[in-house]
Amino acid sequence: MNYRLISKLLGVVALLIGTSMIFSLPWAFPQLGFRESLGNTSQPDLINEHEFEMAGSLALIASMAVCGLVSGALFWFGRKARGNMFRKEAMAVVGLSWILATVLGAMPFYFTGTYRCSGVRLLGEKAAPLIFEFGSFRLRKQWDEAELLAPDEYALLSAINDAGAVGLSPQGVSSVLPDVDAEQLIRDLVSSAPAWQSTIILPNAEPDASADRVGNYRIRWVKMGLADACFESQSGFSTTGATVLADLEDPHLIPHCILFWRSTTHFLGGLGIIVLFVTLLGSGSAGKALMRAEMPGPTKEGATPRMQETAWLFAAVYVGLNVVLAVILKLAGLSSFDALCHAFATMATGGFSTYNASVGHFAQHPNLYNSEVIEYSIILFMILAGTNFTLLYLCLIRQPGRLLGDIEWRAYMGLILFASIAVVAFGLLHQDFSDVISAIRYGLFQVVSIVTTTGFGTHDFDSWNSFGRAVLFVLMFVGGCAGSTGGGMKVIRHVLMLKILRQEIELAGHPTVVRPLRLGDTAITDPGLRKNVLVYFSLIMIIFVFSWVFLVGFEPGNAWGTTIEHKLIDCASGVAATLNNIGPGLGIVGATHQYTAFSPVSKTLFVWLMMLGRLELFSILVLFSPRFWRTI
Amino acid sequence: MNYRLISKLLGVVALLIGTSMIFSLPWAFPQLGFRESLGNTSQPDLINEHEFEMAGSLALIASMAVCGLVSGALFWFGRKARGNMFRKEAMAVVGLSWILATVLGAMPFYFTGTYRCSGVRLLGEKAAPLIFEFGSFRLRKQWDEAELLAPDEYALLSAINDAGAVGLSPQGVSSVLPDVDAEQLIRDLVSSAPAWQSTIILPNAEPDASADRVGNYRIRWVKMGLADACFESQSGFSTTGATVLADLEDPHLIPHCILFWRSTTHFLGGLGIIVLFVTLLGSGSAGKALMRAEMPGPTKEGATPRMQETAWLFAAVYVGLNVVLAVILKLAGLSSFDALCHAFATMATGGFSTYNASVGHFAQHPNLYNSEVIEYSIILFMILAGTNFTLLYLCLIRQPGRLLGDIEWRAYMGLILFASIAVVAFGLLHQDFSDVISAIRYGLFQVVSIVTTTGFGTHDFDSWNSFGRAVLFVLMFVGGCAGSTGGGMKVIRHVLMLKILRQEIELAGHPTVVRPLRLGDTAITDPGLRKNVLVYFSLIMIIFVFSWVFLVGFEPGNAWGTTIEHKLIDCASGVAATLNNIGPGLGIVGATHQYTAFSPVSKTLFVWLMMLGRLELFSILVLFSPRFWRTI
Repeated sequence: MNYRLISKLLGVVALLIGTSMIFSLPWAFPQLGFRESLGNTSQPDLINEHEFEMAGSLALIASMAVCGLVSGALFWFGRKARGNMFRKEAMAVVGLSWILATVLGAMPFYFTGTYRCSGVRLLGEKAAPLIFEFGSFRLRKQWDEAELLAPDEYALLSAINDAGAVGLSPQGVSSVLPDVDAEQLIRDLVSSAPAWQSTIILPNAEPDASADRVGNYRIRWVKMGLADACFESQSGFSTTGATVLADLEDPHLIPHCILFWRSTTHFLGGLGIIVLFVTLLGSGSAGKALMRAEMPGPTKEGATPRMQETAWLFAAVYVGLNVVLAVILKLAGLSSFDALCHAFATMATGGFSTYNASVGHFAQHPNLYNSEVIEYSIILFMILAGTNFTLLYLCLIRQPGRLLGDIEWRAYMGLILFASIAVVAFGLLHQDFSDVISAIRYGLFQVVSIVTTTGFGTHDFDSWNSFGRAVLFVLMFVGGCAGSTGGGMKVIRHVLMLKILRQEIELAGHPTVVRPLRLGDTAITDPGLRKNVLVYFSLIMIIFVFSWVFLVGFEPGNAWGTTIEHKLIDCASGVAATLNNIGPGLGIVGATHQYTAFSPVSKTLFVWLMMLGRLELFSILVLFSPRFWRTI
Repeated sequence: MNYRLISKLLGVVALLIGTSMIFSLPWAFPQLGFRESLGNTSQPDLINEHEFEMAGSLALIASMAVCGLVSGALFWFGRKARGNMFRKEAMAVVGLSWILATVLGAMPFYFTGTYRCSGVRLLGEKAAPLIFEFGSFRLRKQWDEAELLAPDEYALLSAINDAGAVGLSPQGVSSVLPDVDAEQLIRDLVSSAPAWQSTIILPNAEPDASADRVGNYRIRWVKMGLADACFESQSGFSTTGATVLADLEDPHLIPHCILFWRSTTHFLGGLGIIVLFVTLLGSGSAGKALMRAEMPGPTKEGATPRMQETAWLFAAVYVGLNVVLAVILKLAGLSSFDALCHAFATMATGGFSTYNASVGHFAQHPNLYNSEVIEYSIILFMILAGTNFTLLYLCLIRQPGRLLGDIEWRAYMGLILFASIAVVAFGLLHQDFSDVISAIRYGLFQVVSIVTTTGFGTHDFDSWNSFGRAVLFVLMFVGGCAGSTGGGMKVIRHVLMLKILRQEIELAGHPTVVRPLRLGDTAITDPGLRKNVLVYFSLIMIIFVFSWVFLVGFEPGNAWGTTIEHKLIDCASGVAATLNNIGPGLGIVGATHQYTAFSPVSKTLFVWLMMLGRLELFSILVLFSPRFWRTI
């Protein structure tokens, strides 16, 4: 193993990440980051006039320094690098550079001390708080009867908690329970138990808080830990879009510049995948071997003979599509900040939004945004992002027939159409949607968002009928086309799988008949392909099952409150949504929720799942094989 | 395709099934079938003195006549059969004979008019009845507000429903609601709606009812339809043990002789698999090819060179173990009827009991049964039934070393041990069990019951913590050893799968290193084996996913009452439990429930799933391939 060469290349990665952070700095100026639709809340002036984001920009600069140091150390170790890249080195570089990127990309979140969620979780009927301890719900295995709140106390805390990190003014608190001395009730609660004391903030207890909250009764929010930061970073680079952040709209919890860094990780992740896909073509693992064998691309036919040139072409297509979408979104009413962030998330099939309601936010402000244009543009660009970039490039050089004739793309479009019709029909049958127009709008958006593994939401699909949710769950495993930024298992693998299984059934009746697999007019001659597809499915299945059992066993049941039954489904959907780089799952990780309730250990598992899914397993799995490192 | 030969062999199957029904007839005499523990109910005399089971015995005789006619027709068509059995004919015979057995075995249930469940389903908080229409809950998509019951009416109907088919006496009804005229309330309900009129039976409205119920207020029970009868029959032959019968303890609902036929199907199914396993050795499908390649058995080494002799030997071992277990159970307090039925269910890894509480019934009557002996004997014999019969035979001829050294058996025992420890530990942690002794007793029983795919229960595992249920769910896919009566995917496939995947990961880093798979000291040379294992996993997965989505979409949500969230898990567990021939799943198909609430269409799907799982997919799947029938 050529360690020095690996080190040198990892140094480049660290340098690139550090450099990319520069572009997040400008948004620390309030004039740039300001989001108009949030100005319509109850405290318009306060959000508008908030000062330069010092913490965020310092964190970014510190992170850049770390990147520089790491990069320097890696370059120094690799200064005498000799020899060529071989397959093993390539795999090691890919796997290790994603791990490195995750850690370096987590720095800005961690250094800023970004807040991820409220420090109290009030669980419906039980009326008991789950107080965060050591950054998670982990330690509360049992309900402590003594800590159960009285109904009055529960109502008060609910109201304060619902008001977010800003909290409720004394007047607001009093108006929740007009008949009792509400303020005294809270003060009694604080003095009664240490857990509450560290969680409830009384007015003016923290004089350096911002003007919109200093005089309020508030719940303390929890800062991101290292596992949270790595989760968010990996979720960005792997273009998953799963988040631990419960409130994206309060710049005191997460500054604009950090929010932009969060979206930048999507852009970098998508770019990385597109470039990797090209540069590893013909030298890669089983997953790459699949693409090599199948990809009806120009590389095979010599349209762009040199690999580096192809990589640049694809990167240009990717960046170009990002720019086009950003311009469209800007014209539809988004600020430059929002337009860029959402373009990044769309073209990388990531899914990080800058609003709590994801893309659904824009429909809530019809006076500011043309939400239909926004949603349908995003649908179109999600579909493009899930398409093989070779085919997109061929369209650009006026060979659209290659796109329309491609088996994988036809299956991909057919699946989107078929699944949308099923979801819309069942949704209407079960009255999940108010009318046909909105059913099509929300149903199509959600199906495209899941199939392309973006994970945006415009409708709470967790409130849909069971069939709709089951279909979305299964679609998570499909993913986009090979050679796109989409995650999941890729449409082509499913197409091949169905062909293989159909042949095997026939083979069982006619053991002597051996025919080659056909994809359209092309016979597939690679003998390893059949096995590779089957192995890939099996590995995904086994990783899924083991992760699921681990989560169900490791996570305490009371994170699910009174609906413990859902734990099985929620954990399964969480694994599916991270392993396939979707983002949101069902239940507590559903469209309107976050991964914040999971323990740090489980979050670390999710980090690995996202990385495994993104790099199609092998580049990560081999890192754990001692034999891989031992031999030359 | 040699149709005449196939027809002749199917004729033999029909004849065998018809002949087997003879053994169910004696139990129609009340003296033989009487079950002592049921004599301890509130009406001991009435159950004791019930008359000869006329309907049941007539149904059995009619079924035998049908079997005779079908057999005759098949023999007549096959009278000129010439030529040899080839692989194709063998596959066709296997697949078709299971279909034929299912239909013929369903006759006794159907002709008797066996009752499967109460005609009313009262769903907790909503207090609305789900009335059976056309034999299923199918037609009620929405809650009809007008049909919601008042609290008094709901309490009354609940009490009557809970009393089972026997119902409540007028005194009993009055004591439920002492303050109101309860009898008048019911009569008002009956006269108010036609649905209730056909469902509630007033005292003496049906004078020919048995003496224990004629004077009572009762709920009408629903008879088995054709789909129900086929489900029960297939569940028996495939040794699944899933049932649609809500009450096995009332001989007016299901006569003893029919109950014995139900258990006989297990015995026949287990025998059929053991014999098939031998006779198809060396000529079978991918699943059989696996066994051929892997089975460290005497066939390979010439201990019993002739196939037919081996088949007889195995059948003798199987019957012998049935007899031994029946004697043990008889000594532990069971009647001959119960002892035989439970021995059949154990050795076939079926799971049909003759009591509603399954094997847990015996612990409820400590004065009659030695329940610890019963449970631990059944555990032991379940483990034996899940062991490769070749190895059992080798033990009998004093080669126990072969058993102890067998990789698959060691993995199987290790899995049972490991899973039991996990389930017991988590069960104690979550207080599912009262103490360590009972935790081990219940936990071990349930793990063995699921791994061996028997499906007996001594504890409501559906009330366990999520981890315990998740483990059981995953274990469903493991199954017993190859060459046993156990269903599932078989331990050896999982062992091979893990070895294959581990090798593939190493291979990704070293494409040039190709090593053969090793199983213990033996290198596996069959080049198709690797592919076969992967294909089998993939097929199981795809059948599982499609069946799950179908069930979730097709079944109306209100069968789940107010807990619609569980539908996703319950349907998944139902598919897993039938496809792997377990029996009970989770939730509404859980340990204390039945498959009775599913629509006939879904029950038919389950029938196919059980058959697919039992015959390891290919013998059934090829039947649907036109190419299989077309060629010579």
